[in-house]
Amino acid sequence: MEHILSTEPYKGTRDFYPEDMAVQSYIFETWAKTAELYGYERYDASILEPSLLYKSKGAENAEMVNEQTYTFVDRGEREVTLRPEMTPTVARMVAGKRRELSFPIRWYSIPNLFRYERPQRGRLREHWQLNCDMFGVQDSASDVEIIALARAVLMSFGATDAMFMIRINDRKHMEKLYREIGITDAEIVRSLTQLNDRKNKIDHTEYVQNIETILQNHKLAESVLHLMEHATLENDVTRGLRSLGIAVTFDPTLARGFDYYTGTIFEFGDTNPENNRSILGGGRYDNLTAMFGGEPISGIGFGMGDVTMHDFLISHNLLPKEVTVTAPQLVILPIEPVYNIQALSIGESFRKAGIRTAIDYSDKKIGKKISIAVNRGTAYVLVVGEDEIAQNIYTLKNLHTETEEKGALDTLITALTKTRA
Amino acid sequence: MEHILSTEPYKGTRDFYPEDMAVQSYIFETWAKTAELYGYERYDASILEPSLLYKSKGAENAEMVNEQTYTFVDRGEREVTLRPEMTPTVARMVAGKRRELSFPIRWYSIPNLFRYERPQRGRLREHWQLNCDMFGVQDSASDVEIIALARAVLMSFGATDAMFMIRINDRKHMEKLYREIGITDAEIVRSLTQLNDRKNKIDHTEYVQNIETILQNHKLAESVLHLMEHATLENDVTRGLRSLGIAVTFDPTLARGFDYYTGTIFEFGDTNPENNRSILGGGRYDNLTAMFGGEPISGIGFGMGDVTMHDFLISHNLLPKEVTVTAPQLVILPIEPVYNIQALSIGESFRKAGIRTAIDYSDKKIGKKISIAVNRGTAYVLVVGEDEIAQNIYTLKNLHTETEEKGALDTLITALTKTRA
Repeated sequence: MEHILSTEPYKGTRDFYPEDMAVQSYIFETWAKTAELYGYERYDASILEPSLLYKSKGAENAEMVNEQTYTFVDRGEREVTLRPEMTPTVARMVAGKRRELSFPIRWYSIPNLFRYERPQRGRLREHWQLNCDMFGVQDSASDVEIIALARAVLMSFGATDAMFMIRINDRKHMEKLYREIGITDAEIVRSLTQLNDRKNKIDHTEYVQNIETILQNHKLAESVLHLMEHATLENDVTRGLRSLGIAVTFDPTLARGFDYYTGTIFEFGDTNPENNRSILGGGRYDNLTAMFGGEPISGIGFGMGDVTMHDFLISHNLLPKEVTVTAPQLVILPIEPVYNIQALSIGESFRKAGIRTAIDYSDKKIGKKISIAVNRGTAYVLVVGEDEIAQNIYTLKNLHTETEEKGALDTLITALTKTRA
Repeated sequence: MEHILSTEPYKGTRDFYPEDMAVQSYIFETWAKTAELYGYERYDASILEPSLLYKSKGAENAEMVNEQTYTFVDRGEREVTLRPEMTPTVARMVAGKRRELSFPIRWYSIPNLFRYERPQRGRLREHWQLNCDMFGVQDSASDVEIIALARAVLMSFGATDAMFMIRINDRKHMEKLYREIGITDAEIVRSLTQLNDRKNKIDHTEYVQNIETILQNHKLAESVLHLMEHATLENDVTRGLRSLGIAVTFDPTLARGFDYYTGTIFEFGDTNPENNRSILGGGRYDNLTAMFGGEPISGIGFGMGDVTMHDFLISHNLLPKEVTVTAPQLVILPIEPVYNIQALSIGESFRKAGIRTAIDYSDKKIGKKISIAVNRGTAYVLVVGEDEIAQNIYTLKNLHTETEEKGALDTLITALTKTRA
C-alpha cells in the first residue's frame, strides 16, 4: 500500500482551478491590454536568477536575501534565488543589450515572484505582479506618464478616481528640504527614510522618539517633524499630472523601501477603509543598471500585485460576475457512448466554425449530462442519437433562453456562428 | 567600487526580450485558442510542489527526483521541488476536488517546467509546455479526441499532415501480445518497455542483446523481435481516428518513458529529417490520482514543449515573419522636450480610441527619433511642435507607405481608427 499523499498545494502557494484561473486571466489580460495601449512591449525571464543579482548591494542585502528569499546552491556550486522582484532582472536585461536597444524603451511583464515569508504571517510566498518600466529617459514627462499609466490600469477595470488616492514623493526634493533645515549627512537622510518606511507599523510617540534618536538634537527633530507635516511639492511632475487632470497628494513620509529609488516615488492606496492597503507603487531609479558596469541608464516603473489588485476589485465591487471566458459555448451530448465518435466528428464541424465545443463521452443519463452543462455555464447543447444521425435533423438547445432550433447540422452551425457575431 | 555583475541569465534559462516574447506569446496564444476551441478550460498552479509528489512511486523515483530536479529543503524542513512536469500537479488538483467536479472535465495549462540537466548536455533547465488533459472518462472517444486535438494544435500553426507522423501504441494491447507469445511476468514486460524507451539511443545489435539478457531464452527473444516488427493494432481508437481522416502508425516499440501510462500512448514526430525530434507525446493514465486515495480517476492527455514547437515551426517555415503584435502602432515625436507633456496629452486621446501609442521623450533629433520608430516596426508617427500646437494641424505619417495626412487631432484619430478596422 502506497503512502496517501495530501492534495494541498505547497504552503503559501495557490492552485488555480478553472474558475480561479478565469479571474486571474481577466486581470492579466486587462493589465496587458492597457500596458500595450501605452506602447509598452512584453518581456519575460526565468524565475531563477544568480543570487548575486540581489546581494550585490552589500552585506545588509546579502542577509536579507538569505532570510527572505528562496535561495539555494545548485550542483555547480552556483547560488540561485527564485526572483523576489522583477526590477533587478529587467535592469540586467537592459544592461545586457544596452548597445543594441534604441532608447527610450517601454517594457512590461507579468512575472511570478517568490518570498520566503515566516509562515505565521499568513502572507503568500508566490504572487504575480504587473511590472511596467521605461528606460533611457530622465525627462519629467516619463514620470508623469508612468503614473498616468498606473492610473489607466485601474480605470481599465472600471475604477473611478474616488476609489483610490495617489501619494507622491521625490527623494531629491526631500534631500533639498533636509538640506534647508541643516541636515546634509547622507547616512542621516537614509535613516530618516528607513524610519518613514516603518512609520505605519509604529505609533506616533515611537516615531517621534526615533527621529530624536537619529538626530540627537531636539530642535532639529522638531524641524523634521514640521517638515513631514507641512512641506509641499511643486515641480514638473506635479504640474504635468495636473495638466492631465490627475490629482496627487504630496507625502514627505512616503518611503517605498527600496534603496534604489533616486527621484520620484509614488504609491496608490485604496480609499475604501476596509481595504487599507497599498494597491501599487513605484519610482525612478537612475543607478540600477550601474552594477553591470557602463554608464547608468535611467529607469522609472511600478509594480502592481495580483492579490492586491484582486482585493481592490472586490473592495469596490468591480469584478465582473461572469468571468468564465474559457467555458465551452456548446456541449454535444451523445445519448449513449456508442455515438461518441459520431459526436466527436460533429464537434469538429462546429470547431471549424470557431465555436468552442466539448463533448460529454460519459455514460451518464442525458438529464444528468444537461445539468452538468448548465452548471458549467455553457449556453448550448446538442443531443446526438440514432434518429438525429439517421435523419440529419438535430436540436440545438439554448440553455439560457430555454429555446431550441431544429435543423441540419450546416444550418445549425450557421445559426450559431451568427448568434456569436 | 562595487563588483561588476554579469548580465547573463542563470545557466540553462532564457531571457525573453520583446522580439523573443512576441514569438513566445504567438505560440502560447495559438495553443490556448485551439485548446479552448476543443472545450478545454485553463488552470494553473505554483511551480513549487512538495517533493513527495514525485517521490511517492518508490526509491527509484526518489533517486531520480534528487538527481534530475531542483529539490531543496525549506526552513520549515519541507522538501520542495520545482515541478519537472505538470501531470502529477493536475492529478493532485483533480483528486483534491473530486467531490465538487462534474466529470468529464477538460483542462489545459501552459506551465514552465524545470529539470536539472547536466550542464554539458546543453539542454535547457527551464521550458514551457502545453498540457491538455481529460479526466473521468475511459471511452475510446476520449483517446481519439486527445490525438485529434494534438493534431489540431499543429494545424492551427498552418501545418499539414505531411509535416508530421503520429505513432501510437497501447500498453494493454502490448501486454496481450506478450501474453500470446508466452510472456506473462509483469517485471519482464516492464524491462522490455524500459528497453524500448532507450531503443533510439543504442544500436540494433545492443538492442537484440538486451532482449536476450532480459528473457534468458533465445527463442522467446526471437518472438519478441518478430512482434516488434510485425505486430498490428486495430481497435476503437484506430478506427475512430480513421473515421476522422487521421492517419496513425502503430509502433509496438513506442514506450514514452513514464511508468504511469496504462493504455493508449502516442507521439508526434517531425517528418523533416533535419529536425529528428519528437514534437509532443502523451497517453492514458488510469491510476495516477490513486496516490491521493479514493477511487482512481481515468485521465488522458499530452504535453508539447515550447522549444520543440519552435523547432518544428522553423523546420517547416511556419513562423510568421512579423510577430511584433505588441509594438506601438503610433509613436508621437515632440520636436523638443518642452513639448513632452503636450505630446503625452495628445497620446491619451489616441489611446482612448484604442490605438497603441508611445511617445519619444528623449532629446534626440527628429530624424533620429523617426529612424528608431521605423526600426521598431511602428506604422505611424506624429510630430508635435510649436506650429502644430498653435494651429491644431498635425501631420500623421505612414512609415510603411510613406504617405501622410494633415488635419486636426480629432480628424486624424478618426482616420487612424478606421484604418485599423
